[in-house]
Amino acid sequence: MKINELKENNSTVTINGFVDKIRNLQYVQFVILRDTTGKVQITIEKNEENKSLVEIIDNLKEESTIKVTGTLMLNEKIKLNGMEIIPDEIEVTSTCTEDLPINYKDPASSNIDTRLNYRFLDLRNEKNLLMFKVQTCFVNAMRDYVVKNNFIEIHTPKLIGAASESGSEVFELKYFDRKAYLAQSPQFYKQMALASGFERVFEIAPAFRAENSNSYRHATEFTSFDVEFSYINSYEDVMSFEEDLLIAGLSKVKEQYGEEVKKVFNVDINVPTKPFPRVKLEDLYKELEEKYNFHMDFEDVGDMNNESEKLASQLIKEKYGHEFVFITDFSANKRAFYHMRKDGIPQGYDLIWKGCEITTGAQREHRYEILKKQAEEKGLGEDIKFYMDFFKYGCPPHGGFALGIDRLTMLMLETGSLKETMFIFRGPNRIEP
Amino acid sequence: MKINELKENNSTVTINGFVDKIRNLQYVQFVILRDTTGKVQITIEKNEENKSLVEIIDNLKEESTIKVTGTLMLNEKIKLNGMEIIPDEIEVTSTCTEDLPINYKDPASSNIDTRLNYRFLDLRNEKNLLMFKVQTCFVNAMRDYVVKNNFIEIHTPKLIGAASESGSEVFELKYFDRKAYLAQSPQFYKQMALASGFERVFEIAPAFRAENSNSYRHATEFTSFDVEFSYINSYEDVMSFEEDLLIAGLSKVKEQYGEEVKKVFNVDINVPTKPFPRVKLEDLYKELEEKYNFHMDFEDVGDMNNESEKLASQLIKEKYGHEFVFITDFSANKRAFYHMRKDGIPQGYDLIWKGCEITTGAQREHRYEILKKQAEEKGLGEDIKFYMDFFKYGCPPHGGFALGIDRLTMLMLETGSLKETMFIFRGPNRIEP
Repeated sequence: MKINELKENNSTVTINGFVDKIRNLQYVQFVILRDTTGKVQITIEKNEENKSLVEIIDNLKEESTIKVTGTLMLNEKIKLNGMEIIPDEIEVTSTCTEDLPINYKDPASSNIDTRLNYRFLDLRNEKNLLMFKVQTCFVNAMRDYVVKNNFIEIHTPKLIGAASESGSEVFELKYFDRKAYLAQSPQFYKQMALASGFERVFEIAPAFRAENSNSYRHATEFTSFDVEFSYINSYEDVMSFEEDLLIAGLSKVKEQYGEEVKKVFNVDINVPTKPFPRVKLEDLYKELEEKYNFHMDFEDVGDMNNESEKLASQLIKEKYGHEFVFITDFSANKRAFYHMRKDGIPQGYDLIWKGCEITTGAQREHRYEILKKQAEEKGLGEDIKFYMDFFKYGCPPHGGFALGIDRLTMLMLETGSLKETMFIFRGPNRIEP
Repeated sequence: MKINELKENNSTVTINGFVDKIRNLQYVQFVILRDTTGKVQITIEKNEENKSLVEIIDNLKEESTIKVTGTLMLNEKIKLNGMEIIPDEIEVTSTCTEDLPINYKDPASSNIDTRLNYRFLDLRNEKNLLMFKVQTCFVNAMRDYVVKNNFIEIHTPKLIGAASESGSEVFELKYFDRKAYLAQSPQFYKQMALASGFERVFEIAPAFRAENSNSYRHATEFTSFDVEFSYINSYEDVMSFEEDLLIAGLSKVKEQYGEEVKKVFNVDINVPTKPFPRVKLEDLYKELEEKYNFHMDFEDVGDMNNESEKLASQLIKEKYGHEFVFITDFSANKRAFYHMRKDGIPQGYDLIWKGCEITTGAQREHRYEILKKQAEEKGLGEDIKFYMDFFKYGCPPHGGFALGIDRLTMLMLETGSLKETMFIFRGPNRIEP
C-alpha cells in the first residue's frame, strides 16, 4: 500500500518507506515515514505493551527503511495529512549506518559538485523525485503520441565506424583492432530507416558530444528524442507535428502534475496554443534591434546565439504571450548540409522555449545530386559515402527534428541547469559517479 | 491516406509509396505501389488522354517513390486486394537511379554480410518491416505496463569512470584528459535510483559489450530493457513481475499482429500462462541426464550453457507445453556478487525462452556488510566503492532483471540470429554501416 492510498479510518495497513524524521520524546515517539507518494506519521506511545517497538525506534537512524503494519487513525489534530498509524509491527528493512555527508533536504547547504558526488542522496530531495515523475509522464505522453501516429521505434547504433557529422566533437574509442566513434546523433540512421521504407520513425536514446563546454545547457551525454517522417510537403509539416507532440506532452503533465509542480517548483505548466509564433531570422534581428537595441555578433550573423534566444523569447512573450517561437530562414552556411534549401534558404527552423533552443528541425534534402553538392560545399567526402548511398535507390521526401529531453525538463521546471536536471550529469570534468 | 484505408468505390484518393513493380504492356501499364500498410495496383491505359502519365511510367525505375492521385475502383477481378487506382496525377517524389546491389525481395540470393552492407535495402523486405512494427508494439506494451505500475523512467550514463562489473569486456575511450568506459549495463545505476528512494525504475537503452564472440545471439551493442524495484519479499516477486510484463507484451503482439506474423513468419505468438514453470538447476541436470543423457561440461557445473538451455526448453515443452522456464539455485561462484544469497544459494534465476536465455534476474543484496564481503570474494575493490556507498544510508530490499529486446524479437519471430533482427547489427567484425 502507498501512503497516498491511506484513507479508511481504523483499517489495518502496511507501509514501506524511508524514515524521514524521528522525534523521540519522553512519553511518545513520532516517526515520519515517506514513500514516493507522500509522508505519514507513525505514533508510538512509550508503554509496556510497545516496549519492543520503542526499542526499535530508539536504535534507528533516520533514512533507514522500515516496514510498518498497524492501524490507520484519521485525526484532524494531526498536522501531517490528518492521520497517523498506530503500529503493531515495525520491521527494519535496511539500516542507515552513517551520518549523511550532505543535507539533501537543504540543497543550498552544499555546493553543486558535492551534491553531484552524492547524487544518490541529493535525489532524495522531494523536488528531484517529482522532477523524474514529471519527466516520465512528459516523455511517455510524447511517445504515446508518436506510437499512436504509427511511428516505428528504432534503436540505431551508438558505435559508429566513421566520425561523420562533425569530426571535432566526437568521442573516439578502441574497437577491437580498429577505431570507432560514439554517435553524436541518430540523424543519418533515422534517415536510413525512411530510405528503407519505414515512413515514420522515432528513437529515444543517448547522444554523445565531446564538447569541452561548461554551460548550463550542455552535457557530454544526453537523451535525445528523435523523430523523422516521410512524404512531407515542406518543413511546415515538421513544425506542425512538433507542435502537436509538445502539446500532447505538456497537456498530460499539466493534467497529472500541474498543481504539484506549482507547489513544489512554483512554475506554471502552460499548454501552448497552436500554431506557435514563427519569425524569420532577418525580421527577428530587426525587431530585436528596434526593441532592445540588440546587435548580433558578426560571427553569428545568419544564426542564433544565447542572447538572441533569450531576447526572442522575451519579444514573443510580450507580443503574443506565447512561450514558444520558431525561428526560420537561417543562413545556409550556418546549417547542416542535409537541410533542404529553396532559393538558397534552408528549409528548417530552430524552436526556442523560455529563452533556450530546444530543437533544430528541417525538411531534409533527399535528391542525391543536390545533396552531394551540398555535402561537398561543406568539405564532406568519404566519411559520408555510406549515407549518400541511402539516396540512390529511391528515398521519400522527409523531415524531422530532435528534442533533448533533459533540456526540456530543465526548461519546463526551470531548474536552471542540466546539472540539477539529469539523473547523473556528464560534463568535461565529470564522469563520476 | 494509407493503402489499408482504401475502401470506398469511386472515391478520389491520394497515396504515397515506393514503386514495387512495373509491368509495361502494349496497351496498359500496371504499377504496384507499396507503403507500410500494403500494396495496391495502379492501372494506366495507354491512350491519348494518359499520354503524360504513360511517359512518366516509361521513364520510371522500380523502387522510386511516387505520389498518385486518382479514382479507387473496387474490382473483384484484380488479384491484389480486389481494387485498383485509375490515376489522374502521378508525381515522382524520388528517383531510383541505379540498379539495386541486392535483391531484397529474395534474401537468400545474397549472403548475410552483403545484406548487412546494404541493410537499408535489406530492410525493405516485408518481413523486416513487419519485424520492426512487431518490436515497436511489443516493447511499447511492456513499457506501458511498467509506466502504469508507477515505474519511473531513468536515463543512466553510458559513459562511466570505472570499468566496474567485469573489466575484461568493456570498451575504453579517451574522455578529454582521462579514460572512460562504456557501460555494459545500467545495473549499478538502477540500484542507485532505488537507494535514492525512487522505488521502481526502468530504462530502455543501449548496452555495450566488448566480447569477441560471433554467436547468433551476441552483439557488441544491444538494447536492454531494465527493471528494478523496491520492497520485494523475495526473488519470487521479481519472477512474478517479469511474467506479467511478458504476458502484457505478448498479448498485445498477438492481438495486433498475430495473424500477420503467422502468415509472414509462420510462427505462432503464444501468450504464456502464469506461473511459468520453475526448476532448480540440480533437478534440471538430473532430468536432462535421465531424459537426454546430457552431462554438463565440468567448467559449467553450477551454471547453464547453450546446450542445457536448448534441452531445458525441450524438456519443459514436452512436460508442460510451456515456452518459458525459470532456472533457479545456481552456484554462487557463477553469479554476480550483488545477488542476494540465502544459505549460500543465489536468490535469482535465469529465464529461458525457446532454448535461449533471455534474462538474469535476482533479489539484490542490499545489506552493506554482506555485500562488501561478497564483492571482496570476487576480488572487487576500489572500482565499486561508489556503488558500495549506495548501501550505507538506507536502501530498501529490491530486485530486478534485464531483457535484451533484440534477442526477444529474434526468439519471438524465430529469425535465427541477431544479424537478421537488429536494425543495424554490431559485432567484432562489423562496425558499418
